[in-house]
Amino acid sequence: MRLALAIGDAGGVGPELAAKLLSHPDMRDRDIIVVGDRSVLAMGADHAGVTLDLPVIGPDQVNGDLPSGPVLLDLANSPADGVVLGDSDAGNGGASLQNFAAVLRLARAGIADAAMFTPFNKHSMRLSRPSYVDEIGFIDATIDASRSGREFNVLEEVWNARVTSHIPLREVAGRLSVARILDSIRLTTEVMEGAGKKAPRIGVAALNPHAGDGRNFGDEDEDIIAPAVAAAVAEGLQAKGPIPSDTVFVRATRGEFDAVLTMYHDQGQIAMKLMGFDRGVTLIAGYGFPIVTPAHGTAFDIAGQGKADLGATLAAARLGFDLAKLNPAKARAQSLAEDWAIAPVAEPGMAAE
Amino acid sequence: MRLALAIGDAGGVGPELAAKLLSHPDMRDRDIIVVGDRSVLAMGADHAGVTLDLPVIGPDQVNGDLPSGPVLLDLANSPADGVVLGDSDAGNGGASLQNFAAVLRLARAGIADAAMFTPFNKHSMRLSRPSYVDEIGFIDATIDASRSGREFNVLEEVWNARVTSHIPLREVAGRLSVARILDSIRLTTEVMEGAGKKAPRIGVAALNPHAGDGRNFGDEDEDIIAPAVAAAVAEGLQAKGPIPSDTVFVRATRGEFDAVLTMYHDQGQIAMKLMGFDRGVTLIAGYGFPIVTPAHGTAFDIAGQGKADLGATLAAARLGFDLAKLNPAKARAQSLAEDWAIAPVAEPGMAAE
Repeated sequence: MRLALAIGDAGGVGPELAAKLLSHPDMRDRDIIVVGDRSVLAMGADHAGVTLDLPVIGPDQVNGDLPSGPVLLDLANSPADGVVLGDSDAGNGGASLQNFAAVLRLARAGIADAAMFTPFNKHSMRLSRPSYVDEIGFIDATIDASRSGREFNVLEEVWNARVTSHIPLREVAGRLSVARILDSIRLTTEVMEGAGKKAPRIGVAALNPHAGDGRNFGDEDEDIIAPAVAAAVAEGLQAKGPIPSDTVFVRATRGEFDAVLTMYHDQGQIAMKLMGFDRGVTLIAGYGFPIVTPAHGTAFDIAGQGKADLGATLAAARLGFDLAKLNPAKARAQSLAEDWAIAPVAEPGMAAE
Repeated sequence: MRLALAIGDAGGVGPELAAKLLSHPDMRDRDIIVVGDRSVLAMGADHAGVTLDLPVIGPDQVNGDLPSGPVLLDLANSPADGVVLGDSDAGNGGASLQNFAAVLRLARAGIADAAMFTPFNKHSMRLSRPSYVDEIGFIDATIDASRSGREFNVLEEVWNARVTSHIPLREVAGRLSVARILDSIRLTTEVMEGAGKKAPRIGVAALNPHAGDGRNFGDEDEDIIAPAVAAAVAEGLQAKGPIPSDTVFVRATRGEFDAVLTMYHDQGQIAMKLMGFDRGVTLIAGYGFPIVTPAHGTAFDIAGQGKADLGATLAAARLGFDLAKLNPAKARAQSLAEDWAIAPVAEPGMAAE
């Protein structure tokens, strides 16, 4: 199993987390291809106080015969002596986009079995490319996906998946359908089983206060969510709901559910962040290979100080390797020549959501 | 200061909590008029293992010259020997409605300075009166309020107020306006100052994910919430926002805000329940007198066992007395004859929200 790791925004904690991860006892002998600028990784190692001694290859040397153990793919796209720590920057954003596109292409080409990145800064990315909206849109465009993946928020005790994500709240109700919710329950089950959680119990959040309170506060819970849950149960899936969203996470933390499926972004994020999700992992699934990243951001305030906690990054790498086992790259290996290019990423259309 | 306390649903923990409260060292010498059926309070005392010896008056003896200390107003509306514990029941619901209406009228008449109730069961209330929607609608109708009050969720460390409440999620965005949000910030400040929290710092939650992410995910945060916050600040109020709703509670728990103003019901309730709000207090303010209740429900599963924790009920009573001090009843005393009736509550129109 090989993990392709993109070095995150060079102005934040991404380089030092990448360096710490590569030197961690559980990871230093794993097959990891780290992607970015050689001098930025060296800067990260310096900040982290670790020594790295990786084979270095260039874009023209990427092929299926990589050495085992960690290797650095040097894109030479962001000389560390020009990096300003602790703020958004167009140069850092542009390198982030390149690193991100490269690991996606490595995974798509079957050279890596999982993709990962240390924290990017969305503002930096937009300084470089104003049309950048979010990860899902970027991935769809970069690998020309036939369907969009889904984001999962993973804490050890509970996972969160959502039916809609980066859209205005006023559009949420109109986007829900029985088919879409049923599809989300199926995908959540499939991904969690892939991660080793057999027959996961999924609590499905209601849309309206008090789950609509018997149609007093809206009809979607009875007309859309309940039938979707019934259809899932009829397929043998362990789904329950709609459950009022102010109790479903409380019940999950007490052990009743392995995952909560929420209808909109903040419904899950409010809960997960209070539960300590910054220590958690974001997983993007549905593309044939897993994409993982620590849930926290670039932490500009402590960048370059070596203080950044490795916990979420290490958990992300472990989840990436675990999920990759279920669907190793050889199953989808494609010709490298067709599919792989290290040239600066083109400007793909960015779909919102 | 006198608190009018309605005994909650007789099938739940309401009677035993009322009895425990009346016998608590901090409360047993306070002026409390407890309202309900004499035999139900006796049952509650029996379940709680406490002895109560209160003067008892009937509806025809209610006037401004009540004895000091606790007194029972016996509505004789729910003989305890007919009470079934642990389930919803029309008889219990009907008595709940009468007890609730009575304490509201006592407060409105100036006989009590604050109103309180131990947990009601909404389903019981609807078995008795199908048109019952929620507390706010009932209070508006019962005391013929000229404007609706607002609900606050009170934990020691943070309060939560909301701009909209019991409405479908799809209607939330359309109900927001600069005036409405500004009014909510003002009312939150006023009520918290009344409770002794001077110049409360209010974090105002955003409506859309990532506070709209620069209009990528909706416009209300920039067009409605930001101007309302700016107007509040211009008035000298300590408001900040819009703040993404998945971080505003995390920041509040770290001490940055005394209160969070949320745009919709679940936005606040998801957070507050995870933070342990079942140990908290619900306050309904804006009627000239405070209305308080423990945030938890009837707990049918432990009803009659004397196990119910008094914490939230005691906190509610303390908050009721604290707030009453700021606006004692004499300031609004009205003629009893005009305003006070113990007859079964009529069928007032119930406004949703």
